[in-house]
Amino acid sequence: MSPHSTSLRSLGIRIGELASGPANSIADVPGVAVGHVTLSDGAVQTGVTAVRFHDGNPFRDKLPAAAHVLNGFGKSIGLVQVEELGTLETPVVLTNTLSVGTAAAALVRHMLETTPEIGDTTGTVNPVVMECNDGAWLNDIRGLHVQESHVRAALDAAATVFEQGNVGAGTGMSCYGLAGGIGSASRVVRVSRRDYTLGVLTLCNMGRLADLRIDGRAVGPAIAERIAAETADAEKGSIIVLIATDAPLDARQLRRVATRAGAGIVRTGSHLGSGSGDIALAVSTAEPIPHAPKNTKVMTRSVLHEDAIDRVFRATIEASEEAILRALLAARPRVGKQGRTRRALNEFADLLAL
Amino acid sequence: MSPHSTSLRSLGIRIGELASGPANSIADVPGVAVGHVTLSDGAVQTGVTAVRFHDGNPFRDKLPAAAHVLNGFGKSIGLVQVEELGTLETPVVLTNTLSVGTAAAALVRHMLETTPEIGDTTGTVNPVVMECNDGAWLNDIRGLHVQESHVRAALDAAATVFEQGNVGAGTGMSCYGLAGGIGSASRVVRVSRRDYTLGVLTLCNMGRLADLRIDGRAVGPAIAERIAAETADAEKGSIIVLIATDAPLDARQLRRVATRAGAGIVRTGSHLGSGSGDIALAVSTAEPIPHAPKNTKVMTRSVLHEDAIDRVFRATIEASEEAILRALLAARPRVGKQGRTRRALNEFADLLAL
Amino acid sequence: MSPHSTSLRSLGIRIGELASGPANSIADVPGVAVGHVTLSDGAVQTGVTAVRFHDGNPFRDKLPAAAHVLNGFGKSIGLVQVEELGTLETPVVLTNTLSVGTAAAALVRHMLETTPEIGDTTGTVNPVVMECNDGAWLNDIRGLHVQESHVRAALDAAATVFEQGNVGAGTGMSCYGLAGGIGSASRVVRVSRRDYTLGVLTLCNMGRLADLRIDGRAVGPAIAERIAAETADAEKGSIIVLIATDAPLDARQLRRVATRAGAGIVRTGSHLGSGSGDIALAVSTAEPIPHAPKNTKVMTRSVLHEDAIDRVFRATIEASEEAILRALLAARPRVGKQGRTRRALNEFADLLAL
Amino acid sequence: MSPHSTSLRSLGIRIGELASGPANSIADVPGVAVGHVTLSDGAVQTGVTAVRFHDGNPFRDKLPAAAHVLNGFGKSIGLVQVEELGTLETPVVLTNTLSVGTAAAALVRHMLETTPEIGDTTGTVNPVVMECNDGAWLNDIRGLHVQESHVRAALDAAATVFEQGNVGAGTGMSCYGLAGGIGSASRVVRVSRRDYTLGVLTLCNMGRLADLRIDGRAVGPAIAERIAAETADAEKGSIIVLIATDAPLDARQLRRVATRAGAGIVRTGSHLGSGSGDIALAVSTAEPIPHAPKNTKVMTRSVLHEDAIDRVFRATIEASEEAILRALLAARPRVGKQGRTRRALNEFADLLAL
Repeated sequence: MSPHSTSLRSLGIRIGELASGPANSIADVPGVAVGHVTLSDGAVQTGVTAVRFHDGNPFRDKLPAAAHVLNGFGKSIGLVQVEELGTLETPVVLTNTLSVGTAAAALVRHMLETTPEIGDTTGTVNPVVMECNDGAWLNDIRGLHVQESHVRAALDAAATVFEQGNVGAGTGMSCYGLAGGIGSASRVVRVSRRDYTLGVLTLCNMGRLADLRIDGRAVGPAIAERIAAETADAEKGSIIVLIATDAPLDARQLRRVATRAGAGIVRTGSHLGSGSGDIALAVSTAEPIPHAPKNTKVMTRSVLHEDAIDRVFRATIEASEEAILRALLAARPRVGKQGRTRRALNEFADLLAL
Repeated sequence: MSPHSTSLRSLGIRIGELASGPANSIADVPGVAVGHVTLSDGAVQTGVTAVRFHDGNPFRDKLPAAAHVLNGFGKSIGLVQVEELGTLETPVVLTNTLSVGTAAAALVRHMLETTPEIGDTTGTVNPVVMECNDGAWLNDIRGLHVQESHVRAALDAAATVFEQGNVGAGTGMSCYGLAGGIGSASRVVRVSRRDYTLGVLTLCNMGRLADLRIDGRAVGPAIAERIAAETADAEKGSIIVLIATDAPLDARQLRRVATRAGAGIVRTGSHLGSGSGDIALAVSTAEPIPHAPKNTKVMTRSVLHEDAIDRVFRATIEASEEAILRALLAARPRVGKQGRTRRALNEFADLLAL
Repeated sequence: MSPHSTSLRSLGIRIGELASGPANSIADVPGVAVGHVTLSDGAVQTGVTAVRFHDGNPFRDKLPAAAHVLNGFGKSIGLVQVEELGTLETPVVLTNTLSVGTAAAALVRHMLETTPEIGDTTGTVNPVVMECNDGAWLNDIRGLHVQESHVRAALDAAATVFEQGNVGAGTGMSCYGLAGGIGSASRVVRVSRRDYTLGVLTLCNMGRLADLRIDGRAVGPAIAERIAAETADAEKGSIIVLIATDAPLDARQLRRVATRAGAGIVRTGSHLGSGSGDIALAVSTAEPIPHAPKNTKVMTRSVLHEDAIDRVFRATIEASEEAILRALLAARPRVGKQGRTRRALNEFADLLAL
Repeated sequence: MSPHSTSLRSLGIRIGELASGPANSIADVPGVAVGHVTLSDGAVQTGVTAVRFHDGNPFRDKLPAAAHVLNGFGKSIGLVQVEELGTLETPVVLTNTLSVGTAAAALVRHMLETTPEIGDTTGTVNPVVMECNDGAWLNDIRGLHVQESHVRAALDAAATVFEQGNVGAGTGMSCYGLAGGIGSASRVVRVSRRDYTLGVLTLCNMGRLADLRIDGRAVGPAIAERIAAETADAEKGSIIVLIATDAPLDARQLRRVATRAGAGIVRTGSHLGSGSGDIALAVSTAEPIPHAPKNTKVMTRSVLHEDAIDRVFRATIEASEEAILRALLAARPRVGKQGRTRRALNEFADLLAL
């Protein structure tokens, strides 16, 4: 069996009740695109992942958004303004912890180039950059290997088809003591005779191997035994969860949606360790909000009634859980700094099958 | 097999890694005591549970405390001040949603009687009352059957040995479509050569039967099939999680601890539905804070270093998960208003055993 | 000069730039009504004020709402759910600190009577009760003199014309060491060729006399000197600010509006003391949200663009500042428990005139 | 009268009741030092200000800290972790809005150089960078003129004696339509027979001229009339308030302290406009928290009893108000991009004197 043929389906595992979208990815939400730049060479195991939420200019046409900090041992930038104004006005860039500043500088430069009015005839721009620490095991994070050009390249590479596993920002990440990284999944929910899609993209860098569960089954201990891994006492690392949906939700509702990402994380076994930066960001692509409204300052907007939000919550939990598992299954074994290694979950397919 | 002999141990199930305290209950934390008043008669299926966190006067010797609102579709009173000042100054009373006002009035009256300086030579008192809605299925909640005298009786009944299951505030509660109610569990954590105890008490009223998991196994569907239960589309109800520990933690840390209760809830299968009031309150009994300090306003306090808090988090998650399962296993079948019934989990022990 | 003829206008004082509504009161917002019950007899100096935000059933037609806790040394009930769901579903009741439980019980009873589906075919109801402590000086708060019947009477008394000063919940309140209580003011803001009204009602019980300012002028010290008042070292008491507007705002925006109430408070001189429960609640009456939507769960709603919100903020600050001053100017001298007295600001009109 | 001799004292103005420290600056708090780099050349009107809170390594010896977001239209980095863990582990860097990424990158590089264990044998580091937008009027913010070397130079320049006014990060800032920038003030409070110092440093970039008040007096309109300034409809810009104290406060208390900065801002006339990033950060220097505790994970810490915190609040409000006024009085007239100018408050001393 090729290590990369392992899928949840091939293992006989189905996460949750809801149907997934056609690609089972965040890009099932119309307009969403993902681009990676992977830096993998010896001690350099890091990268950048950029996520665009619509095809237009995100500053001129903002999207309702909200974040929830599950555990704030993290260094993201941009969340203060998202919380206050309830909008996202740039692509979201993911990278390693110590490169957030560089990524923010690059994202600002990108926005200045595409949007000449910023800082001139209108105000400034709020770059959103989120991160996990790949330096705890594989990457020479002190080397600050991510350059502004890498961020630009990731933004340029954004497409609806994208790789998962330890690529892009996920290159040097570890998850449950195995190779971690980028995963994605989607779900479809029906409200008032219309289908809405919700997609999740996770950057996975958390968990102790002994705690790993797949659809509830504690598979971690058997893997740990086989590789004679020492199980760390504390859970380190972190996870970023990006949630996109074309359901019409306002910022307050999106905050509630973001909160549910935690349930998806927990279902894979995580204990939400103290030294972890676990943050979820939820974005609704249904109706952009213009930066400068034309005729009137009274907008007419569609919003789901709270009665219908439970389905969106369930979609979030299912897609978050599955995105983490897909990251693990897509990742390949990795060697990093000081010859340190991370095994891949798909090397242990025999222990996973039902 | 008697329905009440079913325990997790008899099912071969062990939740988590940590050892529990001697009684596996919140009362393993020295000073904590629990009292119930159960009102169970036809359409009246409700009650009161009171939790004291130390033997003395809780107003004169306050305890560090913090709450985390997992989902705020709830009607608790007292959390605003706990958030601001980081202290708890009364026992905590649990009851049904529409009786919070009555319970708060009774708790105030109790505090006035025991503490003559309140509202006279010093300020007022902040009663903490938390609730779940037992009216969704079993209880005639519109009847407002809880009287102030019931609250007083529950306070007077507080003891270190107490019943679990559908008693006290848990009398009319439903959990995963079965009889719910009060559960408790504890864990012991070792920090710097000293053992600390963390105990949890849950008032369980949440979850769809189809979602129920025991230690990861999806046992809900098989039970649902046997009783031909319709599984609701949405998760209603709510859960209150009280956490006590003799580890020295400040309010900021206790907020982090309270947050982890959510992981315990999720591990039993809940999807944190919108229509749910899920709130956790964490209290440290290690060192009371005097209402009126005597000689100096500079206090010397013990506080765990953040490096050691992961063990406390893990204890919280394990004890919360187990407390919910113990509530379910302790509950008895219940008939309520309009002849509605709730089956008990221990009627299905054959489906639960490993 | 009759002590009750003193108005800001007669003193030559105009607060802010914006025009007020016709009555300069919260009832300038269509649908808003206020009712008082005053208990003033010897040591009993307390009462109830009820505020209705529209004429219909507030549970069936909820209003977008948000609260901001300026300082959480307070015992309000109902804010957890307002924060989560962004709606208000009952009238708001104001009373003394230790009567919140009783008021909540009465408000629940009122809602059950007017809305038979609560707790039967639908869920429960979230009563909102807010408070200040009148027991610090004038009222025998330990006597728990507010009965459920008083709350009912205040609800029944709600009208668009209502008294200000030390009446209703404000009966026994103190503000800047003087008689305090209920004040109200309003402002009109123009957005996209339409006028919107914003009204404020304050329950004032905060401040040290030495800190009092009227439109920036430090008038407190002169008054303190005349009455040889000892100025307390610490600021006690608290303030509740209710804000209503017919501008279409969502809950996130209303939270921002509520935050601005603090600026109005500060402009009267308050230093936001620690022992104070300062809470603002903002409600938009523009478009109710149905409890049970009929045809679709996708609502169409009007919302102000954020570009237009500054005028609403300014209106909030101006109306909050003026409402506090109007409470002080409307209040009459009061004698309470143990013969304690509070002088009225309008006794010192000669010190106030420009 | 030389334009730079204007001080509050020379105007006969005394802000508040409390005594200031010897230098009336944040550096009155032992260990605090401030360094500027000023970039002022034609269209380039910007800079960097760095604040150190103690002499040692801030990562190895962290300080209790908390932030309060008064209005979140801002792009600061580092506050998520401060909120979660309650500690500050780097100097704080202030700069213009679009240079936050560059400043964060530089601050990370500085920390890596001084602290070799970061990202190697221990975790990563959380840089705190805060900002205001100098591009709205004077600075060519799109030019991204701040380089990493400028940040390093500001860190190296930190000293207990430092300039105020439009220098460092304040170079291109506007405040109440006048030249703004850096101001500082301090207050001394006595608790249990010991004096504690609280110092404030503000980066001032907010306010409409028409709203400016000095100690309550509305001086803005007269200045506006003289310079025939158009008064903007909306308040733009923002303000950062840094608060340091040697009083022993924990993170929860420091959050309460940070909240009070808003009162100081409001007292100078600001209406907390929507388009403003108003953030306060409070730090206690009393007792560092070691990154890696040596013998035990149970720390013994001093903490003020809440009863004594009102004096700290008052000190915060007074010092914040005065720091803003000192920034305005210290600033010099400035010419920036496109020949735009900002007048200085000290040009209007005749309108300010009592």
